[in-house]
Amino acid sequence: MKAVVKTGSHKGFIYKEVAKPSPGPNEMLIKVHATAICGTDISYYEWNQSAIDFTSKFNVKFPFVAGHEFSGEVIELGSNVKSFKIGDRVAAETHIPCGECFQCKNGNSHNCMNMGIFGINCDGCFSEYTILPESIAFKLPENISFEEGALLEPAGVAMRAVEEADVQPGETALVFGCGAIGLFAVKLLLASGVSKVLAVDIDQYRVDMAKRFGAIAINSLEDDLDALVKKVCEKRGGVDIILEMTGSPKVYETLFDYLRLEGKVVTVGHPGGEISINITKNINLKGAKIKGLFGRRIWNTWYNLSSLLESDKVKLLDVVTHRFSLSQFEEAFEQVSKDSGKVMFII
Amino acid sequence: MKAVVKTGSHKGFIYKEVAKPSPGPNEMLIKVHATAICGTDISYYEWNQSAIDFTSKFNVKFPFVAGHEFSGEVIELGSNVKSFKIGDRVAAETHIPCGECFQCKNGNSHNCMNMGIFGINCDGCFSEYTILPESIAFKLPENISFEEGALLEPAGVAMRAVEEADVQPGETALVFGCGAIGLFAVKLLLASGVSKVLAVDIDQYRVDMAKRFGAIAINSLEDDLDALVKKVCEKRGGVDIILEMTGSPKVYETLFDYLRLEGKVVTVGHPGGEISINITKNINLKGAKIKGLFGRRIWNTWYNLSSLLESDKVKLLDVVTHRFSLSQFEEAFEQVSKDSGKVMFII
Amino acid sequence: MKAVVKTGSHKGFIYKEVAKPSPGPNEMLIKVHATAICGTDISYYEWNQSAIDFTSKFNVKFPFVAGHEFSGEVIELGSNVKSFKIGDRVAAETHIPCGECFQCKNGNSHNCMNMGIFGINCDGCFSEYTILPESIAFKLPENISFEEGALLEPAGVAMRAVEEADVQPGETALVFGCGAIGLFAVKLLLASGVSKVLAVDIDQYRVDMAKRFGAIAINSLEDDLDALVKKVCEKRGGVDIILEMTGSPKVYETLFDYLRLEGKVVTVGHPGGEISINITKNINLKGAKIKGLFGRRIWNTWYNLSSLLESDKVKLLDVVTHRFSLSQFEEAFEQVSKDSGKVMFII
Amino acid sequence: MKAVVKTGSHKGFIYKEVAKPSPGPNEMLIKVHATAICGTDISYYEWNQSAIDFTSKFNVKFPFVAGHEFSGEVIELGSNVKSFKIGDRVAAETHIPCGECFQCKNGNSHNCMNMGIFGINCDGCFSEYTILPESIAFKLPENISFEEGALLEPAGVAMRAVEEADVQPGETALVFGCGAIGLFAVKLLLASGVSKVLAVDIDQYRVDMAKRFGAIAINSLEDDLDALVKKVCEKRGGVDIILEMTGSPKVYETLFDYLRLEGKVVTVGHPGGEISINITKNINLKGAKIKGLFGRRIWNTWYNLSSLLESDKVKLLDVVTHRFSLSQFEEAFEQVSKDSGKVMFII
Repeated sequence: MKAVVKTGSHKGFIYKEVAKPSPGPNEMLIKVHATAICGTDISYYEWNQSAIDFTSKFNVKFPFVAGHEFSGEVIELGSNVKSFKIGDRVAAETHIPCGECFQCKNGNSHNCMNMGIFGINCDGCFSEYTILPESIAFKLPENISFEEGALLEPAGVAMRAVEEADVQPGETALVFGCGAIGLFAVKLLLASGVSKVLAVDIDQYRVDMAKRFGAIAINSLEDDLDALVKKVCEKRGGVDIILEMTGSPKVYETLFDYLRLEGKVVTVGHPGGEISINITKNINLKGAKIKGLFGRRIWNTWYNLSSLLESDKVKLLDVVTHRFSLSQFEEAFEQVSKDSGKVMFII
Repeated sequence: MKAVVKTGSHKGFIYKEVAKPSPGPNEMLIKVHATAICGTDISYYEWNQSAIDFTSKFNVKFPFVAGHEFSGEVIELGSNVKSFKIGDRVAAETHIPCGECFQCKNGNSHNCMNMGIFGINCDGCFSEYTILPESIAFKLPENISFEEGALLEPAGVAMRAVEEADVQPGETALVFGCGAIGLFAVKLLLASGVSKVLAVDIDQYRVDMAKRFGAIAINSLEDDLDALVKKVCEKRGGVDIILEMTGSPKVYETLFDYLRLEGKVVTVGHPGGEISINITKNINLKGAKIKGLFGRRIWNTWYNLSSLLESDKVKLLDVVTHRFSLSQFEEAFEQVSKDSGKVMFII
Repeated sequence: MKAVVKTGSHKGFIYKEVAKPSPGPNEMLIKVHATAICGTDISYYEWNQSAIDFTSKFNVKFPFVAGHEFSGEVIELGSNVKSFKIGDRVAAETHIPCGECFQCKNGNSHNCMNMGIFGINCDGCFSEYTILPESIAFKLPENISFEEGALLEPAGVAMRAVEEADVQPGETALVFGCGAIGLFAVKLLLASGVSKVLAVDIDQYRVDMAKRFGAIAINSLEDDLDALVKKVCEKRGGVDIILEMTGSPKVYETLFDYLRLEGKVVTVGHPGGEISINITKNINLKGAKIKGLFGRRIWNTWYNLSSLLESDKVKLLDVVTHRFSLSQFEEAFEQVSKDSGKVMFII
Repeated sequence: MKAVVKTGSHKGFIYKEVAKPSPGPNEMLIKVHATAICGTDISYYEWNQSAIDFTSKFNVKFPFVAGHEFSGEVIELGSNVKSFKIGDRVAAETHIPCGECFQCKNGNSHNCMNMGIFGINCDGCFSEYTILPESIAFKLPENISFEEGALLEPAGVAMRAVEEADVQPGETALVFGCGAIGLFAVKLLLASGVSKVLAVDIDQYRVDMAKRFGAIAINSLEDDLDALVKKVCEKRGGVDIILEMTGSPKVYETLFDYLRLEGKVVTVGHPGGEISINITKNINLKGAKIKGLFGRRIWNTWYNLSSLLESDKVKLLDVVTHRFSLSQFEEAFEQVSKDSGKVMFII
């Protein structure tokens, strides 16, 4: 079968023929239908510091098939698989929990102490077929398409951010970063009772998308965020909820200024280095609550998100702006750094 | 001034001239603009058991001006009033907290141990003017009209029910009763991330209103609620959230059958007598969580609700179906028992 | 091997020789060391309505070995068992989750939609050996003895009740029923920040045990609970937390009178029939929060409880008042209805 | 009357005669009985950066009587005072809320948007008498002594830290800093269900106090905290709860290494400058939850703490190591930097 492969610790992927895999007893063979490009894939494509850190932290071995956001159809079952059958349409969680550690046994399997990462320390889904452990497979509801299904994983990050923000209906929110996850967050916040969602980016294409999805969005290179927050959230003295989805150190320079006293911050973006924070002023006297995010709640986030989609309260597909075939992978990765929302492979 | 007065422990109100009142040091004189009829007003109009119970519990003295859901304009200030000025547009909380008891000092002033009730144990607002303690006045945001402002109190009950239900985005809800508060609840649940809201009543006019507001609504005299819940909530094994807004013993006969395991119930309707509950089956083995409701969180509920209105996420005015002048009070109270949503006096 | 067996739908157990079982692929053979008598065992011994209801609800088949609270040693491993080894000391959860349903996949496997019950719809532990599914085995920390280990399951019910009560340090609590679970609750509440624990029973032997464990305990046949609550909780207007552990309809006649406004009730005892509740007065106007309980959180409750034991913050063994051999089972079951705390078999 | 006065923006206090004050309508005159030295008092005594920052942030005017942790007796009532009478024994909240802002009206009056600070931007309590606004007075329960009463404010900071940590019974905690608030925290954590409390300081006198109060305490200059955490919290992969009570940048270099995945951090100590944090590793991938602290919940924290004291679950007085008269203020402030717990003035 054809696959996009990471062959070693250097820039680039290779599109090549690899052996079609066979499922082990607790695994399934999946015909991949749609798969999307994530920031982690870009890191591996470019082989930047983040990829180097991940490779070391998760003990990654080369070569491996890249990609982890996808949906597809079950075409072969391992001998122990019980909850799925051939023909089932599935998406997949990326975090592979061990099921045995303290975290797994206490409701935090998304942050397992012995976690595997699908598409990082095992083969992923930028390929015609992929092997999926039953433990991370999620059966797609009937009225969710393959393309939408492939967005459940990344939109699940935004969903979890909304869950951790513990929205009180009527609160206001500010989203830093209008990449795909930021855009999903805008939609999900608006669907979850937030009265006004502010959104910020430095890319006008993305700012325009956020506006289209209902945010009060600005390009912070051109417009004054401070004035906007003061105007919109005057009574509350700042926004109630901030979702940080850029990982940019620059954002942290002013982030807490926009937060109201006793407000909530969820950090999703992964900064490359250390961030300087004035704990006294910005956390203690502010009374801030901060939650760091890694992954989706297994399976709460998946059920909640898919229920919102099933009932048509939220639409995800208009975040997708470009679709490619696998063989066009170079073009696809170039597109990501230009005007784009989510970029997908249709297989 | 003209007022609708409850003169004693018998059926009916009287529309009559009464002295225009003067505010004490911590009070304000308000020109009433809009005021709505609540179930409690109906109880006092009809002088039913619920009115008798309230009269005894809250030490009510006759005569008193009826009514407590309203909005108006500040036209005179008591000497100690600090936070309001003449011309301010206001609505009012009905629960008058003492500010000194354990409940008030621990964030539960809505359920004060020495609570007064506006329009029950002091004069209310079915009149041209009313006296409002500063402590229960809420300043209306600019873009909320007087009519909408008069709905904040009853819609606040629905809002608090939604708050207590602790909605996880994507959950399903079932509302028993499509009176005004049930209708407000339908709107607020849908705005707060609930994926599907089922609603039930035995009055087709109200069922139709609930449908218009986005609920999957049925007339339980004609349609099969059991089948509907099974179909809509099959995967979850029942609805996640039930709001009981009828007070009908009949509802309790099957209410818990529709709740999923570990689901949440908020009881708002006040049954007249005792209700029989199978605790083992319906609460323990079910793992149910039940919260009884009395009043709005002061002032969280008010801020949250008015933020939803200000941002146009929720509209309340289409719940109002009839408007009368004060002198038409008999007609208004008759209308309440016919096809109607919320019934209002415009003054 | 010898076992205490329930042979059919009638009173009594039989002590007899049965075949020593062999573990399936996901099971382990356990040498039972200590096992305790639970209320459910008594129901089955006496064959009362509760046993009849359980038998129908959980599709129980006769004959089966009774008993489910125990600890023992792993002596044989099924072929798929991964997390345990021969010689491991274990206790066991009684609720056998399917792992696949909505409840299991959303953090509520204790209330699985397809739940099996160890010792009810499969053989239990009143025997020399028992078969334990790996999925419900809990490895005992080194400094927890077999006898203490056998108490983790019943004490886990009390622990979960404390967890669900969401104790704020300094709050007061009232425990109805000083049977073993009530006594465990007294100890756990006192260890979890409750300032004063009131406890009530009608059996003086148990009242005296509760006193010894630190409760302000009274025999409600002789002493005035109303006066006690008024005195101890005067400022708060009632107790903050009530744990109902009797299942007695009589308790419900006054239970809510002792609860402060906005207080919390956890119901653990299973009443035989319907209970009459004045929802308006006792739940709505009271602002009560009620949580029904079934089982322990898997595995949070187990980890939390065993951490309390490991650090010696709580001792469980002094709740055990009588120890028997399996062959003395009739004597043991007689003892339960006399002066006793927890009654155990040492095997 | 005699008072310890801060006269200007320079080092030191002056002990001098000042006019005995008279209460305004909403104030009371208090005879001070016991008052304790807080870190803020030391900052003002030494006139360090923290004092300069506070002076600017809270618009402080000189001269003012220093001190804010105290208890005393009501000896004169302002004309509007309703909830207190002459002879009442009181302690006082330091944060003076406006009662009108969004924070005050939404349950966060401890972090009022227009906050006054008792003893900072009005006269404090290092004096024979002091003026206390009724709104921040707390009536002492009968069995709490004046000395204990004067500790409610600082112990309230530790109490609030414990409240914000949202302790699950059985969890483990690590306290950085064994000053008075750290020592109170050790006691309160142990009383609130924490199974094991680790505590760290670089002052052996304080480490020994923490040990005496039940902590597993070490001097981090001499002992290996890393090894200790690994040993005590091996199963959980780190501690569940960290309370940062030093404000030391050095502590932040390793703080997150001791936290288990999805653990909780409450920051209480106020670092002087910026702190560098690796957000990706220490907050995001760790799944950390961080809450910044400023003040006590008004009045929840006060009620909860005083209930723990009233029931003798926690003793505070053994944290006090030195007692002085007001005239010995120089000696007292010198003692604070030597071997000491809490240092008090008895008046």
